[in-house]
Amino acid sequence: MAVIAILGAGMMGSALAFPLFDAGHQVRLVGSPLDGPVVTEHRTSGRHPRLDLRLPSGIRSYFADELGRALDGAEAIVLGVSSAGVGWACSVLREVLARRPLLMITKGLEWDGQRLRTLPEVVDAQVPGARSVAVAGPCIAGELARRVETTVVITGHDAAALQPWAARLTTPYYHVRTSTDVTGVEICAALKNAYAMGIAFPTGAHEASGGAAGSIARHNAESFVFAQAIVELSKIVRALGGDADSAAGLAGAGDLTVTCNGGRTGRFGRHLGRGLSLADAIAAMDGATLECLEILRVMRSAHAQLQAAGLGPGSLPLLGHLAEVGLDGAAVALPVGEFFR
Amino acid sequence: MAVIAILGAGMMGSALAFPLFDAGHQVRLVGSPLDGPVVTEHRTSGRHPRLDLRLPSGIRSYFADELGRALDGAEAIVLGVSSAGVGWACSVLREVLARRPLLMITKGLEWDGQRLRTLPEVVDAQVPGARSVAVAGPCIAGELARRVETTVVITGHDAAALQPWAARLTTPYYHVRTSTDVTGVEICAALKNAYAMGIAFPTGAHEASGGAAGSIARHNAESFVFAQAIVELSKIVRALGGDADSAAGLAGAGDLTVTCNGGRTGRFGRHLGRGLSLADAIAAMDGATLECLEILRVMRSAHAQLQAAGLGPGSLPLLGHLAEVGLDGAAVALPVGEFFR
Repeated sequence: MAVIAILGAGMMGSALAFPLFDAGHQVRLVGSPLDGPVVTEHRTSGRHPRLDLRLPSGIRSYFADELGRALDGAEAIVLGVSSAGVGWACSVLREVLARRPLLMITKGLEWDGQRLRTLPEVVDAQVPGARSVAVAGPCIAGELARRVETTVVITGHDAAALQPWAARLTTPYYHVRTSTDVTGVEICAALKNAYAMGIAFPTGAHEASGGAAGSIARHNAESFVFAQAIVELSKIVRALGGDADSAAGLAGAGDLTVTCNGGRTGRFGRHLGRGLSLADAIAAMDGATLECLEILRVMRSAHAQLQAAGLGPGSLPLLGHLAEVGLDGAAVALPVGEFFR
Repeated sequence: MAVIAILGAGMMGSALAFPLFDAGHQVRLVGSPLDGPVVTEHRTSGRHPRLDLRLPSGIRSYFADELGRALDGAEAIVLGVSSAGVGWACSVLREVLARRPLLMITKGLEWDGQRLRTLPEVVDAQVPGARSVAVAGPCIAGELARRVETTVVITGHDAAALQPWAARLTTPYYHVRTSTDVTGVEICAALKNAYAMGIAFPTGAHEASGGAAGSIARHNAESFVFAQAIVELSKIVRALGGDADSAAGLAGAGDLTVTCNGGRTGRFGRHLGRGLSLADAIAAMDGATLECLEILRVMRSAHAQLQAAGLGPGSLPLLGHLAEVGLDGAAVALPVGEFFR
């Protein structure tokens, strides 16, 4: 069993401490510069304030300025910072990552001015020698931290780097599959937030019309938006050189399902579907990070790359509307006539 | 505008009367021999007892023994009987169907002793001259009858028969797409009931453990079962000569979503997931038709055909477990280790 350091003490980084600990590893949880209060609370009470439970007593936590001590002897690194923190993490971990296996929890795509890049690509480019592996698939952190059965997929360009991570992570309740389709898996992982926002529009409209939750609650509309999302994810993955099967599997259909069924993206989409302005919908989220808007910005930047790859005007009507709503403040009006054409 | 007769006054047949009526057609709703009480209630009060609302006042209803009068002058026929009633309908409609366009609402696959057949194939074989078109995709009848926005796909071997039906059915709230992938669309339409049963198992287990609905409610497990269902649907469709894109579209991912979010199949699956025996779970459904068990029987009959098509033991671990639970009374124990292999 190994010593494993998790950098980032947010919900998902901390939740991943559970299967690693249960698999017998010595787990060190290192707060980012923003996670100070989490580390303080854990050291005081043993609890994780955002997961709202006690971490296993063997897990040790570290402040960001104790990073050196936390990494001393660590055989593998898990990166659980927000996408905004990846640059910082690469700079402080540069030396370490060149020589030790890295698992990225962080999801997202970056626009480098020329083309979209997955986060494992970004890290591997910034850190010579790194061979990043990323985890995706349906996983609500609060469930994983309660040891609820979960199946995820890990992906990396270097197939040889995948199996050791699968072995480190697997427990009776945490099942790990592997894929070398980094492009397909990471596109789905990043875009699911944008699409989940749109899948929630009909529920918001239903609420605005005075309807209660129940069997007659615009499930028909919610479901055709879900299907259109899978169709568009498949198109984007194919156009950018990935495997469309990823869109029909854990990272696509699976993660989109869980994102619709729990969490803040759906809540944000319902606000917009109810008719709130973009500004009011953002304000109603109390400062929560809205990954859906971030990925919409990135995809809009990639407009020319997508067009060159065959995804011209009209190819992605749902994504186009989501960008108008989420970036330009347009009113929700799903372009259903353009779906499934 | 045309005179259109709908045979079968159940939920979905009656709901389809709404877009047809709103598109300007003269709609005649004909009860099957089992629908007598529905026709009586409609004639008495104008209401449809199962949809729990008034039908538009222009819609006329007929008892089964008034079929001849209802068909007199009808230019197109909609078949909305249960799958068990298709044989009866073919026999009474034989003359009519040979000369008039038919739209089938009924879903299912039949095992003819040698191979699986879709219902449009069954009807076209029984009725010389018939060129059946079938409708699939996410549609809760109660929502359609309340004119909630819905998108469906119609499919038929004869592409020329599709566009006229799309034109007859389309209204501002009922969007119709076409596909000639009868195999793919109908396999998804039939099997979604079986898979939706299994997707509900984790929620049942959550309830049995005393958990309340909410954000930590085994959504991770529900979502990987959903993804495994799409993966298996794609495999079956491909193996039987259909287009795997159908599994990622309206008939697959779309209809599976709506089936999980509303209706009896999910309730039945939750009973089983809670630990009820098969007999007790069936009893708890108060005599509701359980299409999920019917399609599991059909798929088990087709075991040798599936194997010959490359789907040998272990190819469809979720479907195999669903058959053990739903047909043999085995306890729910999802074979997660075999998923996504």
